[in-house]
Amino acid sequence: MGRVTVRRKVRRLRDGTDAMRVDDLVVEEPLEMRVQGRRLAITMRTPGADFDLVSGFLVSEGIVRATEDVVAIRYCAGAGDDGTNTYNVVEVTLAEGVLLPDPSLDRQFAITSACGVCGKASLDAIRTQAVWEVADDPIQVSAEVLAQLPDRLRAAQQVFDRTGGLHAAGLFNVDGELLCMREDVGRHNAVDKVIGDALRDGRLPLRQTVLVVSGRASFELVQKAVMAGIPMLAAVSAPSSLAVDLAQESGLTLVGFLRGSSMNIYAAPDRIGP
Amino acid sequence: MGRVTVRRKVRRLRDGTDAMRVDDLVVEEPLEMRVQGRRLAITMRTPGADFDLVSGFLVSEGIVRATEDVVAIRYCAGAGDDGTNTYNVVEVTLAEGVLLPDPSLDRQFAITSACGVCGKASLDAIRTQAVWEVADDPIQVSAEVLAQLPDRLRAAQQVFDRTGGLHAAGLFNVDGELLCMREDVGRHNAVDKVIGDALRDGRLPLRQTVLVVSGRASFELVQKAVMAGIPMLAAVSAPSSLAVDLAQESGLTLVGFLRGSSMNIYAAPDRIGP
Repeated sequence: MGRVTVRRKVRRLRDGTDAMRVDDLVVEEPLEMRVQGRRLAITMRTPGADFDLVSGFLVSEGIVRATEDVVAIRYCAGAGDDGTNTYNVVEVTLAEGVLLPDPSLDRQFAITSACGVCGKASLDAIRTQAVWEVADDPIQVSAEVLAQLPDRLRAAQQVFDRTGGLHAAGLFNVDGELLCMREDVGRHNAVDKVIGDALRDGRLPLRQTVLVVSGRASFELVQKAVMAGIPMLAAVSAPSSLAVDLAQESGLTLVGFLRGSSMNIYAAPDRIGP
Repeated sequence: MGRVTVRRKVRRLRDGTDAMRVDDLVVEEPLEMRVQGRRLAITMRTPGADFDLVSGFLVSEGIVRATEDVVAIRYCAGAGDDGTNTYNVVEVTLAEGVLLPDPSLDRQFAITSACGVCGKASLDAIRTQAVWEVADDPIQVSAEVLAQLPDRLRAAQQVFDRTGGLHAAGLFNVDGELLCMREDVGRHNAVDKVIGDALRDGRLPLRQTVLVVSGRASFELVQKAVMAGIPMLAAVSAPSSLAVDLAQESGLTLVGFLRGSSMNIYAAPDRIGP
């Protein structure tokens, strides 16, 4: 809990030198998410903001949509061999009437990963049903504001500087103000943490916001944005074919290769002005 | 099948210009793996080398270890809505006596992702039991050879040049010769493809080899290397804490931040000479 980095000895070769030194590493540990006693998923994540992560995962998977859908989240006690709490198992209590996926799908759904889409029960179910329509969002963002967001995201990243090992996701408003930033070894987790923070704070759907991610734009990241009602996703690196397909289908504005004042807009391009 | 890239229209802003152009995107599509009629996993992957991917996944998960453990792999017909083959569902026939995980674990195992570890049934099961001992491998590699491997891997990457969207995994011998290179939107898939190629070719365990990956070194990548008997893993970026822990526990040499002649060695450092 809160163990975001650890220090380890490392042999370092550089410029002809060969020496031992101490290095900061980003922590990666499994998190098991249970809902009403039943294991829903295990993901490898960086500890910290675990309740946000779980909340965001539940939104991404279409299980919850409002703050009051989640009654309680707590760490399960005694998960370690010696009875100490590892803080790696979390139990969620959902409100009455909030349903888990069809029990017939349950076997397939039971374990998933940071990659939300892989928790789906079949190829046909991959396109999770969104509850909010992002195509209707009248958001307009200037290219000038967009161009500044990766630097602002990077400036807010504290752990990356020490370890070089973390993905970041940042939520901005149309003026380029940072609303929330989360880091994780898994990029899907970083996005779930941002979405979960908004759920717990009663801010869903995230209309009029831009989600910026430090890496590539995969199908699952687009899906998570759509599920949270975010109308614009901007990635520093390349998008995949399926990310573009889903963005076009959903009416989400998808920006890739956002570097300096240069960017590619793959879907719903009219929301970006000069 | 073989759809590794697609072309899409994109609005591009650069240096004050604002124009439509055509861009190459890396293809991302789901692959469902079935074993004897039962769904084992769905992963988002780049089509191509699918049978290698499935074979490597089975090795990583500890289900098979020898070429003859897999009797047949084929695409299931008629998976598309219109009855056409999507080449996104693969059926594996295992040899008699090759067992799937305990049926009591089956529910949890049924769906996994590119991230192999997440297919595990519990936190306790995360350290898949390796069948080969990498700690005994007498491999010695010079730092000079190691330093050249990222460039050699990059030179072998064809699709990345067009799309910027692919992870690569390359297997090298101690003299730095490239034995096998695979690309994928998922870095775990790229590694599984390399391992699966070796399984199908009867080359497991992969003693006296170095696996080089284009990104970070996570726990799961170390696990996959150990499961295939690979004694050395080198990553261009940072390792995580759990990757280092598992490498130290297993006796796998773990190199991170391999850039030019500079590198950090996090586990079993004595195998790297001048």
